[in-house]
Amino acid sequence: MVTTMKNLNVPNIKSVKIEHDGFFGHLSELVRENVIPYQWETLNDRTEGADKSHCIENFKIAAGEAEGSFYGFVFQDSDLAKWLEAVAYSLMTNPDPELEATADEAIALIGRAQQKDGYLNTYYTIKEPGHRWTNMRDNHELYCAGHMMEAAAAYYEATGKRELLDIMTRMAHHIDSVIGPEEGKLHGYPGHEEIELALVSMYHATGDETMLKLAKYFVDERGRRPAFFELEDEKRHPDHHHHPLPEYMVNNAGLYAQWHLPIREQTALEGHSVRALYMATGVADVARETGDESLLQTCRTLYDNLVHKRMYVTGGVGSSANGERFTFDYDLPNDTVYAETCASIALCFFMRAMLQIEPKSCYADTLETALYNTCIAGMSLDGKNFFYVNPLEVYPEASHKNPDKRHVLPVRPKWFGCACCPPNLARLITSIGKYIYTIDGDRIYMNLFVGAKTELETSGDKVTLSVKTEYPNDGKITVSCGCGHYTLALRIPAYCCGKYTLSVNGEKYAAEDDNGYAAITRDWCEGDTVTLELPVEPHRVYANYNVRADAGKVAVRRGPIVYCLEEADNETPLPAVSLPRSSELHCEYVPDKLEGIYEITADGYIECDDGDDTLYRMTPPTKKPVKLTFIPYYKWANRGEGEMTVYVAEN
Amino acid sequence: MVTTMKNLNVPNIKSVKIEHDGFFGHLSELVRENVIPYQWETLNDRTEGADKSHCIENFKIAAGEAEGSFYGFVFQDSDLAKWLEAVAYSLMTNPDPELEATADEAIALIGRAQQKDGYLNTYYTIKEPGHRWTNMRDNHELYCAGHMMEAAAAYYEATGKRELLDIMTRMAHHIDSVIGPEEGKLHGYPGHEEIELALVSMYHATGDETMLKLAKYFVDERGRRPAFFELEDEKRHPDHHHHPLPEYMVNNAGLYAQWHLPIREQTALEGHSVRALYMATGVADVARETGDESLLQTCRTLYDNLVHKRMYVTGGVGSSANGERFTFDYDLPNDTVYAETCASIALCFFMRAMLQIEPKSCYADTLETALYNTCIAGMSLDGKNFFYVNPLEVYPEASHKNPDKRHVLPVRPKWFGCACCPPNLARLITSIGKYIYTIDGDRIYMNLFVGAKTELETSGDKVTLSVKTEYPNDGKITVSCGCGHYTLALRIPAYCCGKYTLSVNGEKYAAEDDNGYAAITRDWCEGDTVTLELPVEPHRVYANYNVRADAGKVAVRRGPIVYCLEEADNETPLPAVSLPRSSELHCEYVPDKLEGIYEITADGYIECDDGDDTLYRMTPPTKKPVKLTFIPYYKWANRGEGEMTVYVAEN
Repeated sequence: MVTTMKNLNVPNIKSVKIEHDGFFGHLSELVRENVIPYQWETLNDRTEGADKSHCIENFKIAAGEAEGSFYGFVFQDSDLAKWLEAVAYSLMTNPDPELEATADEAIALIGRAQQKDGYLNTYYTIKEPGHRWTNMRDNHELYCAGHMMEAAAAYYEATGKRELLDIMTRMAHHIDSVIGPEEGKLHGYPGHEEIELALVSMYHATGDETMLKLAKYFVDERGRRPAFFELEDEKRHPDHHHHPLPEYMVNNAGLYAQWHLPIREQTALEGHSVRALYMATGVADVARETGDESLLQTCRTLYDNLVHKRMYVTGGVGSSANGERFTFDYDLPNDTVYAETCASIALCFFMRAMLQIEPKSCYADTLETALYNTCIAGMSLDGKNFFYVNPLEVYPEASHKNPDKRHVLPVRPKWFGCACCPPNLARLITSIGKYIYTIDGDRIYMNLFVGAKTELETSGDKVTLSVKTEYPNDGKITVSCGCGHYTLALRIPAYCCGKYTLSVNGEKYAAEDDNGYAAITRDWCEGDTVTLELPVEPHRVYANYNVRADAGKVAVRRGPIVYCLEEADNETPLPAVSLPRSSELHCEYVPDKLEGIYEITADGYIECDDGDDTLYRMTPPTKKPVKLTFIPYYKWANRGEGEMTVYVAEN
Repeated sequence: MVTTMKNLNVPNIKSVKIEHDGFFGHLSELVRENVIPYQWETLNDRTEGADKSHCIENFKIAAGEAEGSFYGFVFQDSDLAKWLEAVAYSLMTNPDPELEATADEAIALIGRAQQKDGYLNTYYTIKEPGHRWTNMRDNHELYCAGHMMEAAAAYYEATGKRELLDIMTRMAHHIDSVIGPEEGKLHGYPGHEEIELALVSMYHATGDETMLKLAKYFVDERGRRPAFFELEDEKRHPDHHHHPLPEYMVNNAGLYAQWHLPIREQTALEGHSVRALYMATGVADVARETGDESLLQTCRTLYDNLVHKRMYVTGGVGSSANGERFTFDYDLPNDTVYAETCASIALCFFMRAMLQIEPKSCYADTLETALYNTCIAGMSLDGKNFFYVNPLEVYPEASHKNPDKRHVLPVRPKWFGCACCPPNLARLITSIGKYIYTIDGDRIYMNLFVGAKTELETSGDKVTLSVKTEYPNDGKITVSCGCGHYTLALRIPAYCCGKYTLSVNGEKYAAEDDNGYAAITRDWCEGDTVTLELPVEPHRVYANYNVRADAGKVAVRRGPIVYCLEEADNETPLPAVSLPRSSELHCEYVPDKLEGIYEITADGYIECDDGDDTLYRMTPPTKKPVKLTFIPYYKWANRGEGEMTVYVAEN
């Protein structure tokens, strides 16, 4: 089969200088100043009041340099990996010799904890040395290896230092010696996907074909019958007695971790949402590197289903806490939702992977939705508190007293025993430079609008693009284009409904449409300026009538930013509030609120009791007028505990 | 303290001859012909395809008449108890020598399974003979004893046979020797309430003061500090290591089983809803028998909170499946609800107990709501399939694919491993004769409108009342009154809003209002007839604006019967359907539908997609007119799997 699949480039993070004062400059600073140092202290168990991590201690014990036993989750090693990856991205843009020295020390420790045969996993090394690779379904060996491989590739790219890359190359070769299609090897794959995409990064960093071969093997093998995890389970329980499945695997064990069907037969993202989206990213990466059209088609199918039937308006994914999972089409409850921060981060990974195969603005639209709403809602304004679960409706008393909503926290807690989301957010924000552009020959696609100066390499030129913008707070994007003959393709977000203004050197320009991008092809000269104006006025968003939870309701958005009502600004109960279709949405900048927001206000109503406190009555409720005040969703829960809702009744 | 507390009489079931063709005549027949024989076969493990019960076998093993080990729940014994109780009620109205002989045999077996010291519980006798009374929190010894005591009192009343009564008297004395306030006894109480109300029944049957003393002790001791269950737990786990609480007890262990506070300090029904309502019934019974005003006040407080803040419009109770429990005020989700059949049955018990203390129509209104909606919805039209959970909104795909709604079954299954609801419903329906009247001196309160001929004893007369009615299908109730001087007080349901027509011997009568009853006092002569006409027209019901799940929605009711929309009659998705406030509700009898129903129809709307299949869009949805067809809620799910909703959007 002749493939025509593209493989678009992404600029190196080092070549993207994010504006210090811009949207992401500020977020990166929060991560650099708060998350990275805080996490290092936590990994070393030096954070007062935080759950014990024991992560560094586990590595020391595995290296024979400390006494004690393993403590933590089976995937505790990945915490250090994610920290190292975030450090690597941070060093690319903000060199910091002290931080680099700390990272080097940690890497040296990892090397000492590695076993002679290349194996690296502190849980098994300390606790079950004889039982490696006996429970790949539940015990995250490949997952931990994957995260450390991502860190290795990033740290090599950041510093040129090969130590971690070599460590993980040895681990990859060890895995290849144990797992694979050949007779005598385990025909297995990870119970939590991650290593597939990581092996592709390792392949890019090392050029070692073993990496790509392994990644492809994991993708191809997943879900084949007889199912590896069933055989593995039988081996662990030869007597077939009393080995109940975890509750979230009951009914269809394979669905939870996406081994219900071979990947090419899967038509929707199912099960644990982070697993599913790491899988999809790995599939896209392998498709791109191998030119496998059937895998690309699978990715498109999974994506189409996701954005048309399984994604919240905030870019959140995962409709149930039970298994942190996808459930079924149009099942998007707002108040029992999971919508894990990590899942939306994984959705960003998947979208970047798709943008590297085909420049379609829809992928960048989805990336933008997830990034500017659910992902960054994961972190408090001060960068010190984090959400795992990102609900679209919260009633604090329900979180405290109805066990079905126990997972829906009304305020961000400091840190978690399972420390997945904060460091994951750290590595996303510090690597934002990888999400802005994709380059296809001499066509430069601008996927995100980020104030930054970037050096790019097209097929013919080295080009510098300098973007000035307050986006998404303001819709004006000004690009100073460096010399060369190339196409600049600017994404026109779907919320514009095709309405935008584009000018080149001050003159209106009728751009060619390239898959949802406004494309300008010319010989660019120094000083050429492109100005794009996107309409970021507040507008209403309606969910498809099949979304049962949103029937009769409306959400408010401004540009890509989804808004919400909070108790701090509005009368309650919020479900008794309504926003008539005819009410105008007013927008105003309020500099001293939540570090400055564009606030949206409108005339609405709230039901009231008329002094009648009966539970059920035969007379209809009455309403009184109220002023409704909407704030950006990603800034909710920064003013103490209170009600919040994204959707409002429209009647 | 001088008490003025009343103690109203209830006629013996034997003296109530239910109309064969009436509402309850039909239901009783279903129970007699289906449930009672089916359950006996199941208890004996002779039902093909049903889960193994092993209940009779457990008794045989405990009696030393069979080999084997205990099987089933720790409360398996109670299945036989509930069957015997239903049999007793059935024998009172429909003598059946063959059934009575079967019951006698079972009772003899129970006698042989009883231990020499009076102890009766097959789980402990077979499985943990040395560990009686070591885990009263979880292991249901007192609960099982309570159910068998209820059966004993009922069977004695039905047949005059003392054997089971004597067995359970011995057990009660054994309990009294082990548990109580005296030094050297366990200062405990049941982890699942039930024995309190049962001991009061035993007290009535035997006159033995020990029964009432024990019941009062259990009520008074509950929730005191130091908490018995905490001390008991420490005794079981002296090392304090690794004895995690069941998940539903986490945070506030006492709340689940109502030992968070002493009973007189409790202000709302909390935790497991069946436990809570059995407790409330026992508290009311003890209040009545002892004249304890503080306990009565507690019952009133619990009742007020329940009906004003914690009960579904269908009389369902219990807002979360996690712990099958109450959650908090106004938390009444329709689609994740628990609303166990048993909990509404227990609510009927509580209301009858309250009606025996004070004749207030509100208690009978609540009884009627629970009975005619949630309780009888528990059984299929053919009497062969049963619901535990009675949701107000069902989407079958969600039940199958969203684990949060796994407990919400869209069709009634045949029977359950945990066989609590079907036999509980059987004993409620066969004892309906106990719910119709309460008698206070020479005042006869008619609480339910049931076609029946009843012999009653007032303080001065023996009176026969003969009621003819199609209620609740028709609002006309005709009472032929026997001779005597007495007051006939007919409940005027709250849904009438004070509108009704009352006539005596064909002439309009302006009745005195006695706590919501229309009271007629006179010297009645043979042939005197009272006719009450209640308006059972269809009407709308609105939930209090604090009920978040029902905001902007409306329910439809006719008389006490709550209606619902089913997929079999309506376009879907039902959440996209709306019923404008201005639409007229038409009502028509449809004889060949669901064994005959009064169907309600109205003009409504449904949202449609206009060919736009995007998930989120900026244009409002359009609506098209549809005809909405409502059926009585208690007859839902008798036509296969489909959507159902009680609440409909009103805009």
